[in-house]
Amino acid sequence: MNFHYPNGSSFKNTNKSKQLNLSKNSSINYGDRGMSLEAELNQSNEYYLDEDIAVVHKKPTPIQIVNVDYPKRSAAVIKEAYFQHASTTDYNGVYRGKYIDFDAKETTSNTSFPLSNFHKHQIEHMRKCTQLGGITFAMIKFVKSNELFVLAGPNLFYYWDRQNNGGRKSISKSELQDNAYQIKYQFQPLIPYLSAVDHIIDDRNNI
Amino acid sequence: MNFHYPNGSSFKNTNKSKQLNLSKNSSINYGDRGMSLEAELNQSNEYYLDEDIAVVHKKPTPIQIVNVDYPKRSAAVIKEAYFQHASTTDYNGVYRGKYIDFDAKETTSNTSFPLSNFHKHQIEHMRKCTQLGGITFAMIKFVKSNELFVLAGPNLFYYWDRQNNGGRKSISKSELQDNAYQIKYQFQPLIPYLSAVDHIIDDRNNI
Repeated sequence: MNFHYPNGSSFKNTNKSKQLNLSKNSSINYGDRGMSLEAELNQSNEYYLDEDIAVVHKKPTPIQIVNVDYPKRSAAVIKEAYFQHASTTDYNGVYRGKYIDFDAKETTSNTSFPLSNFHKHQIEHMRKCTQLGGITFAMIKFVKSNELFVLAGPNLFYYWDRQNNGGRKSISKSELQDNAYQIKYQFQPLIPYLSAVDHIIDDRNNI
Repeated sequence: MNFHYPNGSSFKNTNKSKQLNLSKNSSINYGDRGMSLEAELNQSNEYYLDEDIAVVHKKPTPIQIVNVDYPKRSAAVIKEAYFQHASTTDYNGVYRGKYIDFDAKETTSNTSFPLSNFHKHQIEHMRKCTQLGGITFAMIKFVKSNELFVLAGPNLFYYWDRQNNGGRKSISKSELQDNAYQIKYQFQPLIPYLSAVDHIIDDRNNI
């Protein structure tokens, strides 16, 4: 089955979701530690950094600062500030010489990932990065089942556009199973997402 | 003259500092607007973004949040927070499919750029990004003369290591004139630094 989306490239169901990096001892569930996806990713990125594999950092949350106090002989204290919405994604960096850009989202749903987790400007940012040759994707975690998927940018844009054309407002888990890379938690790195990125890079080179 | 630094690649004085993007009407000084280098770069990055040339953003300043108030029916207010030192550089993004990473520094000196403007962890971050195939550089502005230089990462590391080996603690302006790309302010983008990045990419491909 081939979908075609606006940029003309085809969206193939290549049954890519074979589970990557199955842990050898399946009785250990590395993902079930009560950590947030952000903490899990930070730990994984630290491993990739230490091993000279990739440099990926989470961007700081943007803060609008309203009032700062400068006491004598001590550090400036921010007295009033507000959280702002990021206009980009949360994570970016370099891997295999390429620009990597992604966002990580958790859902408590058992059956689908609601697209309302993304803001329009985040999708626009990822589209532009993809267009300029960057590797973009969404990391999606179903927290109840500890299931993780890496959905390549162009596939995410397909579902986003389907919604905007009056289609469903979410991506079903079975669509992710067919069109995303499922990642299994392991010991180190906890989330070996770069193995999915390897596939995204290879797929792009084969177009 | 060929320097050799630890990674084995050579550091050639190729007299690269020919002034890029000379404005046609030299009587207009686009750089003399009393803007900070950060504001000038943000404006330039906005132009590159609008024209679909590159996606480069300044990372938000990291803030350590100590106390947050959650008033009913209004936005959370940060009541106590402190500025943190960034462990990476301030700017990164994608251009020509490549990962771009740089920091921008101003100096009031007329004759040299003090290396104390950089933190050790910033240099380490840039080294790692370079090693993984990213394009790194320092953007250096002499504020009194409105002169701008783009110094490629490997050249910056050479001067950093020279300092650590007991050498001078700064880069002289004449060294920058010989081994960096001088950028002239223009109308749009105000700082056309990607023309220097083109040279850095080409130089790297020719090694």
